[in-house]
Amino acid sequence: MNILVINTGSSSLKYQLIDAKNENVLAKGLCDRIGIEEPLLKHCKAGMDPVLIKCAMKDHEIALNEVIKALTDKKYGVIKDMSEISAVGHRVVHGGEEFHDSVIIDDRVMQTIKNCIELAPLHNPPNITGIEACKKVMPDKPMVAVFDTAFHQTMPRYAYLYALPYEIYEKYGVRKYGFHGTSHKYVSQRAAAMLGRPLSELKLVTCHLGNGASICAVKYGRSVDTSMGFTPLAGLAMGTRSGTIDPAVISYLMDKEKMNIREVNDYLNKKSGVLGISGVSSDFRDIQAAAETGNDRAKLAIEIFCYRVRKYIGEYAAVLGGMDAVVFTAGIGENNVMIREKTMKGLEFLGAVIDPVKNEAKGVETDISADNATIRTLIIPTNEELAIARETLVLISK
Amino acid sequence: MNILVINTGSSSLKYQLIDAKNENVLAKGLCDRIGIEEPLLKHCKAGMDPVLIKCAMKDHEIALNEVIKALTDKKYGVIKDMSEISAVGHRVVHGGEEFHDSVIIDDRVMQTIKNCIELAPLHNPPNITGIEACKKVMPDKPMVAVFDTAFHQTMPRYAYLYALPYEIYEKYGVRKYGFHGTSHKYVSQRAAAMLGRPLSELKLVTCHLGNGASICAVKYGRSVDTSMGFTPLAGLAMGTRSGTIDPAVISYLMDKEKMNIREVNDYLNKKSGVLGISGVSSDFRDIQAAAETGNDRAKLAIEIFCYRVRKYIGEYAAVLGGMDAVVFTAGIGENNVMIREKTMKGLEFLGAVIDPVKNEAKGVETDISADNATIRTLIIPTNEELAIARETLVLISK
Repeated sequence: MNILVINTGSSSLKYQLIDAKNENVLAKGLCDRIGIEEPLLKHCKAGMDPVLIKCAMKDHEIALNEVIKALTDKKYGVIKDMSEISAVGHRVVHGGEEFHDSVIIDDRVMQTIKNCIELAPLHNPPNITGIEACKKVMPDKPMVAVFDTAFHQTMPRYAYLYALPYEIYEKYGVRKYGFHGTSHKYVSQRAAAMLGRPLSELKLVTCHLGNGASICAVKYGRSVDTSMGFTPLAGLAMGTRSGTIDPAVISYLMDKEKMNIREVNDYLNKKSGVLGISGVSSDFRDIQAAAETGNDRAKLAIEIFCYRVRKYIGEYAAVLGGMDAVVFTAGIGENNVMIREKTMKGLEFLGAVIDPVKNEAKGVETDISADNATIRTLIIPTNEELAIARETLVLISK
Repeated sequence: MNILVINTGSSSLKYQLIDAKNENVLAKGLCDRIGIEEPLLKHCKAGMDPVLIKCAMKDHEIALNEVIKALTDKKYGVIKDMSEISAVGHRVVHGGEEFHDSVIIDDRVMQTIKNCIELAPLHNPPNITGIEACKKVMPDKPMVAVFDTAFHQTMPRYAYLYALPYEIYEKYGVRKYGFHGTSHKYVSQRAAAMLGRPLSELKLVTCHLGNGASICAVKYGRSVDTSMGFTPLAGLAMGTRSGTIDPAVISYLMDKEKMNIREVNDYLNKKSGVLGISGVSSDFRDIQAAAETGNDRAKLAIEIFCYRVRKYIGEYAAVLGGMDAVVFTAGIGENNVMIREKTMKGLEFLGAVIDPVKNEAKGVETDISADNATIRTLIIPTNEELAIARETLVLISK
């Protein structure tokens, strides 16, 4: 039984075909530059080199047809025909307060996802386009929507509300939603497996550190707080995002730099974060290389990033009333030895001590705690596509 | 040797005359509605009922003359003439990066304070007006400026910089400054005295909880991080201030509520916080009364306020790498039994346990820790005027 996992952006479509029985990825790929010039499909069959396919893809429906063509291709395909796809799992960014879990997509669900557009005007429309393209290309396949926000819907009210006039929440749903929920949920489950304890007994702080980055306090399997907010701009310093700032900085910037609010939003989302501090790159590999050659602002970017992660771990330990483990995941969390080391330095008083040799691990599930640690520190590679496939399987099997 | 302590707002002037020898307050008072209609001087000689004096006060200079008149009045005065005032200590809100300590005011200092106006356009100008009025009324008295920001100038760069393009810091000084420094410093010193240990060995989290509220991580007597930011809007939920929000909320509000950025700033500063959540009041006594009659939003405001304080305590424990004591000060911190109790609940894992009976204390220095606590929790009434008088005395004695 194969599940096709789809993640659509405004001009892109990522996919994986996963065999639900053994959870193997049969093939995966990316349609890029959909609707713009020189569209390209990069397709990769498991165990083979990627194939680059130039093809006209003026919209997501055509792109999806190309994906099916690639998946059923005699040479680099992995299935005979579409009948070997049992269901489609879609990543949807924003489920608002409507979706606490993944759901089978029907007309009512579709309408509700559309109602959430206002909360995620950049993200939900391409997700909807992807679902609609799928409906046309494979009208009979059951489809499931898996939301980035759903896992965080268990946050208590005092954690998700801002100290704004209450009416703003009632009228517009302005509150903390949180994102990366699929990842935080997935690594929490893996953490329980690694620790050999039921998730329902564990207090975890999960650190999803990628170009976008967020931290989650997971109590007994449920998200109780997270660092992103109403949008993915809030919280940590990220690749290009500022994370939390004094809100009064915005009017100051508008005044001094003669920017309008749209330009400031752009500035905070695309030119800030470790890119803005370092002036080098949004990618920690570049920043680290620059720091090693003595670039002061690159060093500073690393310090600020790690400091903020460490502060959230302390904060969420307080939220949870203690913790059993800290989990590092996503590109930086899984692979950056230095970032993990600098982040955890100073948390020894909580019992979180890492072993510098074990911390050399990259991209594999590893307990990097020192022998004398009373709180475990874990590396757990995230796998949002697999998580989506699993959620899809569960729902269509009901 | 008597020190006159002055704290000027745009239409107000608060004063205390303190005997530096025994630190007794000889008299204190407030000129209100300066330059507007029906100005009033409320003067209070120690041990006597306050006197209300109606007098024309069209500017701060006239107000100060009225203060001198009151201080030297035959009936409710406390000194014979101005010669019994040795020096004047002025509270100044913003000292930017220029002032790491209190200073004797000379022409150069005056100019530098004026240069900080841009960073505190609402606060520094009345402070400057107060200093200039003093200069005219008592030209020969040494004067000292004590800054709200100075204590926090020891924060490391990775703590005070936002994840914004670095140029914004270089060009405009946009960074975290922090406020309430005089209070955080004062209660830190008192905490060391109460604990019978040198401040240079202590890790403290000081919670200044008043209508404005901020938390400070104090390591070995130096501020290393604090919750307010570029302005006093950031951080905790306060009486009417939002504290930290997702910065993207601002453009959303502008769009939905058709506000301009000035109106949004006003909204976040004056209509948000526990007032905005509760819809009842910015004063916790009112909110608590409403909560006790079952008002849901009043209960919520209390929960949000305490939750945020608790999160900062955890965060700053991580910043400090452990802590010796938590200090509660200012109106709410000194007097609100319920807020202290709710805030500390859940921090037992750190060793911070309070004794419910000791926690009944109000407005007096009290160690409210339970017998089994390994981290002390202290109530310490703040006294910014006394702190200003002390700083003034030290500087003029040099």
